[in-house]
Amino acid sequence: MIKISFNTLQETLKLKLLKYGFEESEAGLCSKILSENNLYGVASHGTNRFCSFISLIKSGHIVVKTKPVLFKSFGAWEQWDAQKGPGPLNAWTATDRAINLSKENGIGVVTLKNSNHWMRAGTYGWKAAEDGFIMIAWTNAFPMMPPWGSKQAVLGNNPITFAVPRKTGPVVLDMALSQYSYGQLSNYRRENKPLPYAGGYDLYGNLTTDAGEIYESKRALPVGYWKGSGLAIMIDLVSTILSGGNSTFDIGMSEHDTAMSQVFIVFDPSKTNTADSINFIANSIIDSVKSSEPAEQSESVLYPGERALSRKNEYLKSGIPVNETVWERILKL
Amino acid sequence: MIKISFNTLQETLKLKLLKYGFEESEAGLCSKILSENNLYGVASHGTNRFCSFISLIKSGHIVVKTKPVLFKSFGAWEQWDAQKGPGPLNAWTATDRAINLSKENGIGVVTLKNSNHWMRAGTYGWKAAEDGFIMIAWTNAFPMMPPWGSKQAVLGNNPITFAVPRKTGPVVLDMALSQYSYGQLSNYRRENKPLPYAGGYDLYGNLTTDAGEIYESKRALPVGYWKGSGLAIMIDLVSTILSGGNSTFDIGMSEHDTAMSQVFIVFDPSKTNTADSINFIANSIIDSVKSSEPAEQSESVLYPGERALSRKNEYLKSGIPVNETVWERILKL
Repeated sequence: MIKISFNTLQETLKLKLLKYGFEESEAGLCSKILSENNLYGVASHGTNRFCSFISLIKSGHIVVKTKPVLFKSFGAWEQWDAQKGPGPLNAWTATDRAINLSKENGIGVVTLKNSNHWMRAGTYGWKAAEDGFIMIAWTNAFPMMPPWGSKQAVLGNNPITFAVPRKTGPVVLDMALSQYSYGQLSNYRRENKPLPYAGGYDLYGNLTTDAGEIYESKRALPVGYWKGSGLAIMIDLVSTILSGGNSTFDIGMSEHDTAMSQVFIVFDPSKTNTADSINFIANSIIDSVKSSEPAEQSESVLYPGERALSRKNEYLKSGIPVNETVWERILKL
Repeated sequence: MIKISFNTLQETLKLKLLKYGFEESEAGLCSKILSENNLYGVASHGTNRFCSFISLIKSGHIVVKTKPVLFKSFGAWEQWDAQKGPGPLNAWTATDRAINLSKENGIGVVTLKNSNHWMRAGTYGWKAAEDGFIMIAWTNAFPMMPPWGSKQAVLGNNPITFAVPRKTGPVVLDMALSQYSYGQLSNYRRENKPLPYAGGYDLYGNLTTDAGEIYESKRALPVGYWKGSGLAIMIDLVSTILSGGNSTFDIGMSEHDTAMSQVFIVFDPSKTNTADSINFIANSIIDSVKSSEPAEQSESVLYPGERALSRKNEYLKSGIPVNETVWERILKL
């Protein structure tokens, strides 16, 4: 790992995006989103995915200059077609639009079809919550996880974000519906460490903590066994029906994780609360969690988003760790 | 177990509700909801909870004759105060109102404060989906589960339902955020059987499949470890802020599982799809799940709601199994 400042990281990615056809302002925003993913500790959705992002641009799966367009409006819910534009920019636009719809209607929903990988779900949750809004958003995804009772990977891990504003740092959950992401499995496999809890099956259908065996079997475990499997099915159903776009099955017909369906739900809590009262409620809930008695082998109880925030503060001071090989590849793009 | 017909079950519960102060039509609806919970295989939220439902009426925690009242409207989102009325009737009213709001705005949201236990989350999902709507709803709950990293039960298991219409039977997920409900743990404990997967901790902080040990430690496991813990925190935050009602912490100040906060989100998919196209999408997703290759020791892959539907069909033919002691207690009420 080398350490790189946020500015260097963002400027480097921005120059590459300009080289591959982005306009100045889009290159600025997209490089900011990707660099912040590293900053919040999610390199798998920042630098580690940048080369494949560029190669999807080269292959035409991501179309740099298209933007989402509104195609149907039903009042508080709008359907937009992202036309295969860059996923992070599509999702940013959808978040902004859902925020504006929530200001008018109390709640606002934007559904996106033909979007691309939005990278880190939490990006949009943090954005909405930092602006004072409550967000729930999710995306469907390429098939990579078997449903409960099956050995065939026909479900996406369909990441979800939930976000709530709070003055000392929003509360933001960012979770995929597999117990571990393939990014995490890859880290454990590289370091040859067992997973803390079973994360999938070996080739013979036994639960295993060996990330390499899960790679081999392609049988990642849904979060909470049958429960995460059911939730992944529902997220795919709702995303596909509401957006008018592709299901995980449809996405799987392509070779790549592209042209997916996404849902952005935003509430404007200022309709009925002052910023102080939202903060008071959020703090009282978080305090009851954090002040609960720690379990054996646990130093403290964390709230959703707490680790991301502390990584951000640490990395802003000491630099962002970036894989050296990945960095060299990015510089050569 | 004795077997009782749906009509006998409903009529019996209805007479008891009339005896305890319900009006004719409310007694009819409430007894129908509770009997259907048995019919769909969830006796824990039907007959098994009926005596405690009546005792909460006697103690004034459930106020039979109050109804939810609107107190703030923001367009597509309305805040209602359930005034401690009967939970199933509150949730039914909220579902109906959210459906009507979705017809006007594409999406409709009702938040309820001071509601009571809605019994089975799936009741409202089945209702909305059978009427052609997509629903997402949840409730917060009494503290009964430790957050990840804690040994103190400060989180609710905050049940969620997701529902999507489909002609041959809606797809309905109904899940609490503990890996097993206390109802299920109680069954395993009574039958002295190990849980299929760890469902909580023993008194020493070891994961265990012994339901009795989990009862003793009061340390139920969140679904997917840290992930379900985070989701339960978010559901509580969103429910409390949006409804203006009680958090799980507030609910825990009382001795009973009452005066909780609930969120009902409904989409009207007919705005942009015909019933046939919704059905086509739902079938294609469900088919891809059900036709995927079964795992070792698995006979078939089920979709969310499939087991409930087959139980309903079986019980309508052969009678609904009801615990004999529970039934005798109900008859004596």
